[in-house]
Amino acid sequence: MYRLYHMPLSPFCRKVRLVLAEKRIEVDLVEERYWERDPDFLRRNPVGKVPILRIEGRNMSESMAICEYLEHIHPSPALMPSKPEERYEVRRLCGWFDDSFFNQVTANLLYERVNRKIMGTGYPDSAKIKAGTKAIKFHLDYMAWLLDQRRWLAGDTMTLADFAAASHLSALDYTSDVEWTRNEGVKDWYAKIKSRPAFRGILSDVVPGFPPPPHYADLDF
Amino acid sequence: MYRLYHMPLSPFCRKVRLVLAEKRIEVDLVEERYWERDPDFLRRNPVGKVPILRIEGRNMSESMAICEYLEHIHPSPALMPSKPEERYEVRRLCGWFDDSFFNQVTANLLYERVNRKIMGTGYPDSAKIKAGTKAIKFHLDYMAWLLDQRRWLAGDTMTLADFAAASHLSALDYTSDVEWTRNEGVKDWYAKIKSRPAFRGILSDVVPGFPPPPHYADLDF
Repeated sequence: MYRLYHMPLSPFCRKVRLVLAEKRIEVDLVEERYWERDPDFLRRNPVGKVPILRIEGRNMSESMAICEYLEHIHPSPALMPSKPEERYEVRRLCGWFDDSFFNQVTANLLYERVNRKIMGTGYPDSAKIKAGTKAIKFHLDYMAWLLDQRRWLAGDTMTLADFAAASHLSALDYTSDVEWTRNEGVKDWYAKIKSRPAFRGILSDVVPGFPPPPHYADLDF
Repeated sequence: MYRLYHMPLSPFCRKVRLVLAEKRIEVDLVEERYWERDPDFLRRNPVGKVPILRIEGRNMSESMAICEYLEHIHPSPALMPSKPEERYEVRRLCGWFDDSFFNQVTANLLYERVNRKIMGTGYPDSAKIKAGTKAIKFHLDYMAWLLDQRRWLAGDTMTLADFAAASHLSALDYTSDVEWTRNEGVKDWYAKIKSRPAFRGILSDVVPGFPPPPHYADLDF
């Protein structure tokens, strides 16, 4: 069976978990406190990050590389369209969320509120919380603009881009950092994706000492 | 003709330039001072980053998404292998360089030394320079370890992973931040890639007020 070394609220790990669940691939989840830099773990990934997906004795890292690989060897159900222009748009949005959204929003809010506490690196930096709270509005509005023209983020079918975005937003929803009333289109999109069977594992995550708010797992939020 | 909005020392722009040059695709290069947030430029990419590749009136962003698209529509010469395991390794290494190497090395050295000066945001932060100088050693040693087992970084053929790595290293070589005597294998690899015709454009880059050191464009460095 596949094994995934992960942390529950990591958006990069969530993206891989969603892909595995959507494709109905069984996986054994192992929490890895990667910041403790356990030597065994560093042998699996010298750069010391999660997720690591272990397949037949091989340790795979870098969430986008893993997702593209899973898409190739488990093509059904498809999470990548076939036309090059459409594939480009999926990858562009994955880059948008995993780079710009991550640096401007996720790192400023989730990492300050949760990771600092579990890693024991002090209190949240209020300047970062302020920057993240401002930046998420711009990104939610951009998503609303996309969803005004398309059924899903990258086009008319659900793709890896939706999973990348939902991975960040679901983790931020755990800390009540998403203002769902801001854009109706974004809320509708999240309700659709949240109700998929693939999302169940993520909605049942609980970080010790950090209970989720009641709306987190509620499909009618 | 294609048009690329770029900055000469940006490793993400360099990766796209190398792919275009290797595939012999003509491109019109336009320098874009993206931090000035020109409204015209923000219409091309609301997240305000370079590179932007303009193809037939369409503005494309996110360097990996662009490179994968170029590989699809201009497949020859190939910069991606065909087997899924080999494609995974190329993407893993692109992620390694564009994320970990970038954050630990390029952002700490190149961005502190050059970007601060051209953007007018003050002097380099000595703690960051120190962190970058330490981190590059680990990454060069990791490259040496890979190159001890393979002809190129991701396997026995040259791929996008080599271009991703060379984009960061060439930009850092411009600021004399690469200790080429540390690992002979890495130096040999860079000499091979530096002597390719596709590399010429990059070796002739000059940033005003910031001349390159004499060894920068020298094939026998």
